[in-house]
Amino acid sequence: MTDTSLPDQAAIRAAAARIAPHIRRTPLMRLAGADLGLPHDVILKLELLQASGSFKPRGAFNTLLSGPVPAAGVVAASGGNHGAAVAYAARALGIPAEIFVPELTGPAKRARIEGYGARLVVGGAAYDAARQASEARAAETGALQVHAYDQATVLAGQGTVALEFSEDAPALTHVLVATGGGGLIGGMSAWYAGSGTALVSVEPEGCPTLATALREGRPVPAPVGGVAADSLGARQVGALMFPLAQRAVTAAVLVPDAAILAAQRLLWDAARLVAEPGGAVALAALICGAWVAPPGAQVGVLVCGGNCAPGSVAGA
Amino acid sequence: MTDTSLPDQAAIRAAAARIAPHIRRTPLMRLAGADLGLPHDVILKLELLQASGSFKPRGAFNTLLSGPVPAAGVVAASGGNHGAAVAYAARALGIPAEIFVPELTGPAKRARIEGYGARLVVGGAAYDAARQASEARAAETGALQVHAYDQATVLAGQGTVALEFSEDAPALTHVLVATGGGGLIGGMSAWYAGSGTALVSVEPEGCPTLATALREGRPVPAPVGGVAADSLGARQVGALMFPLAQRAVTAAVLVPDAAILAAQRLLWDAARLVAEPGGAVALAALICGAWVAPPGAQVGVLVCGGNCAPGSVAGA
Repeated sequence: MTDTSLPDQAAIRAAAARIAPHIRRTPLMRLAGADLGLPHDVILKLELLQASGSFKPRGAFNTLLSGPVPAAGVVAASGGNHGAAVAYAARALGIPAEIFVPELTGPAKRARIEGYGARLVVGGAAYDAARQASEARAAETGALQVHAYDQATVLAGQGTVALEFSEDAPALTHVLVATGGGGLIGGMSAWYAGSGTALVSVEPEGCPTLATALREGRPVPAPVGGVAADSLGARQVGALMFPLAQRAVTAAVLVPDAAILAAQRLLWDAARLVAEPGGAVALAALICGAWVAPPGAQVGVLVCGGNCAPGSVAGA
Repeated sequence: MTDTSLPDQAAIRAAAARIAPHIRRTPLMRLAGADLGLPHDVILKLELLQASGSFKPRGAFNTLLSGPVPAAGVVAASGGNHGAAVAYAARALGIPAEIFVPELTGPAKRARIEGYGARLVVGGAAYDAARQASEARAAETGALQVHAYDQATVLAGQGTVALEFSEDAPALTHVLVATGGGGLIGGMSAWYAGSGTALVSVEPEGCPTLATALREGRPVPAPVGGVAADSLGARQVGALMFPLAQRAVTAAVLVPDAAILAAQRLLWDAARLVAEPGGAVALAALICGAWVAPPGAQVGVLVCGGNCAPGSVAGA
């Protein structure tokens, strides 16, 4: 029943029209290189200001609005952000929601999910355990499952980030994006493939799903750990996103946790932005030099989430 | 020597060109009424993302770039945001800076000023005492003074906020702005006067400078207190801003501290924005009903600063 066809620009345009009444067109902001300690400016897309605190409601709304939803409602498994987004979307559309999260999901994300009126179920060490529990629950109740990343409607929804970014900053040569399960960079790949904009995947050293998959030529399991595991801690990238990423992702780099925390602090110090660790991962690649812009590059950075305790960004 | 002529649209355009290499064009974002508990959408201008964490570098850069700066550098008195902005601008232009702040200025603002390399002098209970100390110091050293609000180049610089807001959201019928000493709303009045956009001044009940002045027909002293006193705690509005405000400000409302803190929490919960109390004052007027939009209004809200401890916005 799940649509497994790969999304393309037409599917992303359709998704954008479908979700427009429900999501925010998040703004861009140029930061001077001098404010970041970099030799070039950076265009940030402030997707951390999206409803529910991350890009995830794009895919959630697109899925819930793409077909009939059973009376049993919707079920999702999540490190937190996807669950919050599904809960937010379900509330907006009057649909009951059950969200499964693992033990590592922090209190800010748990409170957010319950605050949107969803039933929260906590169990298992990491995302994969929560996913198995949610699948068993969906089989029991008949609820619609919204996968955190490996579902065509989810990919098309997340791809609307790229549609907006390319409309609002058409001259970008490179866009840096954090990768977990790959729904975001997969959807963005479907938009940017064949354009003049290359995607750079950035992952924590503790969760190297796409870097490993690109090296092996197929999605394979990778470790799950580090400071951004609650948002980027998928076991492996999705099957649907992988061929899309192969076409548009020109580099897949890894960053240490220290660089992620430094990027969080820099976003606060330089721009009063509160990014969660996963939301700071893309910028971290520039800060620590894991990726260096070629001469003349116009660099975009997606800041994809802000669901953390705000006091956590200011450092000791 | 200080230029006391009132700024107009031409002066604001000139200021915008002068400061463009140094400040950020801050983005707008539409928030749905449903996300705010309001019957209408709101267009936020995210000036809290400005360099140094508030709108203040606009006036600081415009002043420092409008004429020769003595070898003794620059002196300013501030509740904190103006001092941080002058320090930021002075560092960018290679000018030595001394900043005078009162005791009520919190550690985040003090650290910001010193972080930009300025000499920080703390003394006196509130802004007025710091201002007197800074004037004595300027007389001693010959340094250029940058007033926190009552200076034509400062007003013209702050007016560039309105230039950007009107270009990026030309259909607004009302723009809500927090008022302290009035440099911001004075500069914005110079831009919006005679246009189709009315300015609504919002002040804490504890610092009612403009509401009192408009009632009395002239700037008069008012109390200084409440949760936003470190950014809005001027003793009275400036002489230069007052005739400008009389032309463009159609309402001057007051909000209680509880509404300011609620607006801070709402900005965090709904949009992952960290506004300081003074930065949340304008939105507070909508939240508590101190100002109610007329039918069909297109409402803009300026979120003017974010210099607080980030953990302070999340509530208990």
